[in-house]
Amino acid sequence: MQNSTIKIALIGLGARAETLLVSLFATKDVDVVAACDVSGKAAEKINGVFVKNGRTPPAFFTDYRDLLRRDDVDAVMVSTSWNSHLPIATAAARAGKYAAFEVGGASSTEELWQLVHASEQTGTPCMMLENCCYGRPELLVLNMVRQGLFGELIHCAGGYEHEMREGLALGVENGFERSLHNRYRNGDLYPTHALGPIAKILGINRGNRFLSLTSTASKSRSLALCAQAHRGPGTPQRDMVFNKGDVVTTVIKCAGGETITLTHSVSLPRPYSRNCRVQGTKGIWLEEANGIFIDGLSPTVEEIDPAGNPYTMHRWDPVESFYEKYEHPLWRDYKRNTIGGHGGMDWLAIQAFLDAVRNKVATPIDVYDCAAWMSVTCLSEQSIALGSMPVAFPDFTNGKWINRPPAPVNKWALDAVHEECFD
Amino acid sequence: MQNSTIKIALIGLGARAETLLVSLFATKDVDVVAACDVSGKAAEKINGVFVKNGRTPPAFFTDYRDLLRRDDVDAVMVSTSWNSHLPIATAAARAGKYAAFEVGGASSTEELWQLVHASEQTGTPCMMLENCCYGRPELLVLNMVRQGLFGELIHCAGGYEHEMREGLALGVENGFERSLHNRYRNGDLYPTHALGPIAKILGINRGNRFLSLTSTASKSRSLALCAQAHRGPGTPQRDMVFNKGDVVTTVIKCAGGETITLTHSVSLPRPYSRNCRVQGTKGIWLEEANGIFIDGLSPTVEEIDPAGNPYTMHRWDPVESFYEKYEHPLWRDYKRNTIGGHGGMDWLAIQAFLDAVRNKVATPIDVYDCAAWMSVTCLSEQSIALGSMPVAFPDFTNGKWINRPPAPVNKWALDAVHEECFD
Repeated sequence: MQNSTIKIALIGLGARAETLLVSLFATKDVDVVAACDVSGKAAEKINGVFVKNGRTPPAFFTDYRDLLRRDDVDAVMVSTSWNSHLPIATAAARAGKYAAFEVGGASSTEELWQLVHASEQTGTPCMMLENCCYGRPELLVLNMVRQGLFGELIHCAGGYEHEMREGLALGVENGFERSLHNRYRNGDLYPTHALGPIAKILGINRGNRFLSLTSTASKSRSLALCAQAHRGPGTPQRDMVFNKGDVVTTVIKCAGGETITLTHSVSLPRPYSRNCRVQGTKGIWLEEANGIFIDGLSPTVEEIDPAGNPYTMHRWDPVESFYEKYEHPLWRDYKRNTIGGHGGMDWLAIQAFLDAVRNKVATPIDVYDCAAWMSVTCLSEQSIALGSMPVAFPDFTNGKWINRPPAPVNKWALDAVHEECFD
Repeated sequence: MQNSTIKIALIGLGARAETLLVSLFATKDVDVVAACDVSGKAAEKINGVFVKNGRTPPAFFTDYRDLLRRDDVDAVMVSTSWNSHLPIATAAARAGKYAAFEVGGASSTEELWQLVHASEQTGTPCMMLENCCYGRPELLVLNMVRQGLFGELIHCAGGYEHEMREGLALGVENGFERSLHNRYRNGDLYPTHALGPIAKILGINRGNRFLSLTSTASKSRSLALCAQAHRGPGTPQRDMVFNKGDVVTTVIKCAGGETITLTHSVSLPRPYSRNCRVQGTKGIWLEEANGIFIDGLSPTVEEIDPAGNPYTMHRWDPVESFYEKYEHPLWRDYKRNTIGGHGGMDWLAIQAFLDAVRNKVATPIDVYDCAAWMSVTCLSEQSIALGSMPVAFPDFTNGKWINRPPAPVNKWALDAVHEECFD
């Protein structure tokens, strides 16, 4: 199998598919043999990318169900609109094909159960391409946590804080899907960029699980203000209502007793951040401070207050100072090659998926991970609708989280038995 | 009145009283005429401070009720243990004496109602000495918000993140009050350092109010680990149970639609932070990044993704770059004089109180502020006890928050009508 070619089909041929192709074309044993989009224009554009790169164009489809019937496809990569990731991945699992799908959240726990059942019943793995799980600082901290430097984990935080006002406020006129979600829904629509890495670090679905959450939305102002600023008086677009609060805050409680605070903010002007925090009894990483503090390793300074009493101040070490000693092996190998998008993590996430397809093994982000992470979206909508009431997570593993066998250990693995969840 | 002397009594003579005396001795028209503590040893120590500074020692009392009967006391400053701030301040109000009390939280909303009733019925103001309201960056941001640079406010955050493991874990043996609270209670025990400035910025009790909160506690590990590390096998101290979760996260919803996330963390090793964030439709301050971003003023950079698509990156301006133009007048006056504790803000908070006493006017932090802010502690305990259920804030103003008359405008005022709460 190692010497044969992996046959990939792309489903959804927008801008994200182009980014995926940068990595796929750079991978030796991969052929993109089929592609699918409801839009002929999108297909034409992707055809052009193949031609420009001197590649044989794939067979084009407009219905993914036709594509899934092909015997010569080993795996599909799904970069369609948010609402169609789960039904397509479920159909792929039913067709016995590995599926990788792009990042998003769920509309109901039912569609997540459908995916879980399809994957369990057919034994076909699927994987969310959560590239941030392979981010450089995220993997550094994963590595340091596994080596015990953070002690027992207590609290994490993360967010998706990415200003996209104009795209969201004006995109609704063209049916841009993210705009529609911001117009009609109110919840954490995009929780996994920070939650994925944190879930791996906390051993979620392997000795730990998400138990419950509360979610609270601020008022919604920014998208309406943006529409008003760009659209003339009297136009219907000017008075458009957006349901989603500008900032949605979600607090998750885990079975191991850890808490996670998530922030979703896509309409307010600010520098991009995933706002990560990983904190244990011995150490903390705080993305916003670009700092790590490890008890006994990081600096402290003795100071004196005005009444003459001494006190201790702790000081951050810059994150960069830990790479020499604790860089994750994946990033050591990668040696900062800049193939693919998002500073290398796209490349690594895609390679992790292709490696699982190539060796017919489990994906490092599995169906239970996908279900748990994506369920935050619909559960946060429910909590907000109920005035921030706590809402329980389904146990998508049906009890297997307590003693699931260790994940297959290969270079792409993000799991390890997190022995300190309970003591 | 301006030429006479203000007669102050200190109640509670521990380390904090010594810090207060640094500022009081440096204020020309203040005499400290009386002092009270249940401990003779504490009184003796404070007596020594007076002698060392060439001051006439005050009359000493062991029961604050005796002290409150003195006619020659204009105001009391209360730096006793947390649990006694409210009954003493209530008794002072009943005795017609201004009271300033140190920072803490409430055990019940009932004791807050008692204070509100005493103050309302006697017309006697009281003030929490929430020094952080007079912190330099907090006042900078207040000033910038009032000038409209942040647009309409949407979301704030703050915390008390201060590692005090050994003091808390071992202090319980000597009855150290904060230790006892950490042993027996589970909630945000000390919410006001960040919440006070945020409440002033959001116009709480003047056109806005806190509506409800949810609170979630992580497991409790760090203090027990610390006790185990310091106490021998077989000693009862070694196996002490601490109820308080190492990290408590509280999310508040305001009547104006704003949200506030609070973090309480006093047992895990990390650099000190009040973790402040103030975010509106046009700007954001983030303490952990030491940055401010103002839409249209702060820098953005155009970048290109691997597939050739352009995108915009926002960059932080350092907080320091705004002082020249937007420094709060109080800090301009103060010219970074280092009298008093905590980098000047103690001095400013104490002067604000003394100015109100001197001129017989309302205190800039009033009884409704104290009640609303301190109620977070007992309400967060309730929410945690109920599995993070949302809990409603009492309206301590009984409806007056909607259209309370503007606060007296003097140089110490922190209020201004926050016109953008509703629109």
